[in-house]
Amino acid sequence: MSVESTIMQMACSAKAAAGELARASSERKNVALERIAVKITEQADAIQAANRKDLELARRNGLSAAMIDRLTVSGKTIAAMAEGLREVSRQEDPVGSADNTWVRPNGLEVSRMRIPLGVIGIIYESRPNVTIDAAGLCIKSGNAVILRGGSEALHSNQALANAVSEALAETGLPPSGVQLVPVRDREAINHLLRQEEYVDLIIPRGGEGLIRFVVENSKIPVLKHYKGVCHVYVDRSANMAMATEICLNAKVQRPGVCNAMETLLVHEEVAADFLPIMADEFFKAGVELRGCERTRAILADTVPATEDDWHAEYLDLILAIRVVDSMEAAIAHIDQYGSRHTEAIVTTDYGRAGRFLREVDASVVLVNASTRFNDGGQLGLGAEMGISTSKLHAFGPMGVRELTTTKFVVRGNGQVRR
Amino acid sequence: MSVESTIMQMACSAKAAAGELARASSERKNVALERIAVKITEQADAIQAANRKDLELARRNGLSAAMIDRLTVSGKTIAAMAEGLREVSRQEDPVGSADNTWVRPNGLEVSRMRIPLGVIGIIYESRPNVTIDAAGLCIKSGNAVILRGGSEALHSNQALANAVSEALAETGLPPSGVQLVPVRDREAINHLLRQEEYVDLIIPRGGEGLIRFVVENSKIPVLKHYKGVCHVYVDRSANMAMATEICLNAKVQRPGVCNAMETLLVHEEVAADFLPIMADEFFKAGVELRGCERTRAILADTVPATEDDWHAEYLDLILAIRVVDSMEAAIAHIDQYGSRHTEAIVTTDYGRAGRFLREVDASVVLVNASTRFNDGGQLGLGAEMGISTSKLHAFGPMGVRELTTTKFVVRGNGQVRR
Repeated sequence: MSVESTIMQMACSAKAAAGELARASSERKNVALERIAVKITEQADAIQAANRKDLELARRNGLSAAMIDRLTVSGKTIAAMAEGLREVSRQEDPVGSADNTWVRPNGLEVSRMRIPLGVIGIIYESRPNVTIDAAGLCIKSGNAVILRGGSEALHSNQALANAVSEALAETGLPPSGVQLVPVRDREAINHLLRQEEYVDLIIPRGGEGLIRFVVENSKIPVLKHYKGVCHVYVDRSANMAMATEICLNAKVQRPGVCNAMETLLVHEEVAADFLPIMADEFFKAGVELRGCERTRAILADTVPATEDDWHAEYLDLILAIRVVDSMEAAIAHIDQYGSRHTEAIVTTDYGRAGRFLREVDASVVLVNASTRFNDGGQLGLGAEMGISTSKLHAFGPMGVRELTTTKFVVRGNGQVRR
Repeated sequence: MSVESTIMQMACSAKAAAGELARASSERKNVALERIAVKITEQADAIQAANRKDLELARRNGLSAAMIDRLTVSGKTIAAMAEGLREVSRQEDPVGSADNTWVRPNGLEVSRMRIPLGVIGIIYESRPNVTIDAAGLCIKSGNAVILRGGSEALHSNQALANAVSEALAETGLPPSGVQLVPVRDREAINHLLRQEEYVDLIIPRGGEGLIRFVVENSKIPVLKHYKGVCHVYVDRSANMAMATEICLNAKVQRPGVCNAMETLLVHEEVAADFLPIMADEFFKAGVELRGCERTRAILADTVPATEDDWHAEYLDLILAIRVVDSMEAAIAHIDQYGSRHTEAIVTTDYGRAGRFLREVDASVVLVNASTRFNDGGQLGLGAEMGISTSKLHAFGPMGVRELTTTKFVVRGNGQVRR
């Protein structure tokens, strides 16, 4: 069978499964999630054997150590996937619920009922745990999903997706509700992006190249984020010890990810006290600093920051630093250079905390916490399908609720329009 | 100034205004809405004089009576616009509100705060009241708006938009929060669709040609609906008098609009009793009937319906009728031929009412009420920016809430990620 017909058949059977999943009870969906958790734990040996095939191929193809690390499925990875499924299962089931009902003067009762989106296509790279996260979130939200993982993870993803299909079948849910694209051919992505008759939403996760390719070629709506140029603003009233710990965590705990801090903004009144202590910590952690003129007046051996540095997503142990006159100047800097991803303030001032939360335009805005918390699991969504930095439909990490929409439900007793 | 620079300057100043509108208090926004209502009432003579210029031009250009009717701004139209503004003003202000807050095991307090989208572009035809509806909804939801009305309504729209700008300025809100494209040139639409740096959402309202043009040429996300192939299903347990009244209203009260019924589905057990009575009413109202074989066995002089009829959006006094075996068959017909716009059931059976509401995939699903209620004003949203039949972001009539999104707000006390 050609890649094109493979993909079309998958999309068509996903659409059929979506109807059944939309009507499935919360109980049945939760049983399925628990069964997947049990299955991947029981089948850990087979999954890791499949993963070893991918790893061998990856080594032969000379993939970087970082890539191989992301690709590796350890016993701990499997335990984390199982725990993720249980967290998703504990989430409230949004399907069929309605926030509130209002009554019109003519007696019509109106409400918005939450419903699944239908069929979701997710295109991702490397990490096999996305297979389980996406399957769990889509089952819980009553959607069918087509998974297109990285070609270097195909064996691992197949082992995981098989466990999911078995669990669905044993629970009386359609196994084609979760399907993995079984071919490495990149053409498969092109064909998937053209199934607008069957697929309702595409979520690309990965590098900027992949995401741009998907946005430019998809006939289906796409939810995505391009990059994370995230800031921490240390206010004049910040607790200095807390600020140091948060900034260090935001920069170094995992510098290669989208919610790591890329630029540090410091209020001028505290810069002279704070920056030397902070620089010391960054020095110990091996972080290269690039500062504005006022930063360099305090930290003499800092590299001068250029305009490019304010725009940069380093994804590395490099940090830009700017001293600002006021919180307003910090917010203006974020408006100009930020990517609407994650922004944090460290302050003890109640009013300024509130203003920062309200006025900063980003998918996640934090007070006195690390930017690293912009993550579905960390924020209590159980898992995430990705992080949206576009405001339409979803903004921020996408969990179960973001995979649904609402329809209007109207109960009357004979009303007609006059 | 070229059309291109006019549009770019408008988009740029809308973006600047959007920040101010996002921070405006509910009170100030409501004062502005009230002031617009007062102004258009006071300036009724000037608005109607401007409207007469459009009407003269329309007659000279040979526009149809229906078009001229849509274009006409009467004293009653102005009163309805003012009342619409007051209804929007009475809506809850979503901006800054959060549904619920949850606390993570590490003490982080997480919530989703509602925020405006930013700058919205609306492209519409003929009816000048959309100018006021769109302005009101956008001000209330804290968004800036760029209005591109029909070129045949330019004088009327300018008179209305001037009243809005005056009211904004007098209330201390930025007048560039609501701007009307001042040129007739169709090129203006092309330029507007390329302002992705400044404009966050495009809403086209009008014929299918306009909407397809916008979807194909926009670099900005588009919310739209193509057509309304709406059904009423008369169940075996329907109250016959109620069914007759609802079906008549759904078809004839205003046949040229998207929420009018196009196909009637009737349960076989009641077809022989119901259809003759119903056909009588339709005959009196001048409706042409096209029926399936089983319909024609009951109503002998009905034109045979073809496959095309099940797909048709007549927008006219024509109706397709099909007798079905069961509610399941009715739902299957709607799944196959419906456009996910508006679907209604007439039934006295509690369980079947609930199943129809849950299982039918449409933006508005009604029990025992006319399809004509799929309308923001009728459903209590005050007004509407349009009706979305795509599920992403909004599904159904778009009111104040649909013009907002949410961001995650996280309150910590020093949490870092381990």
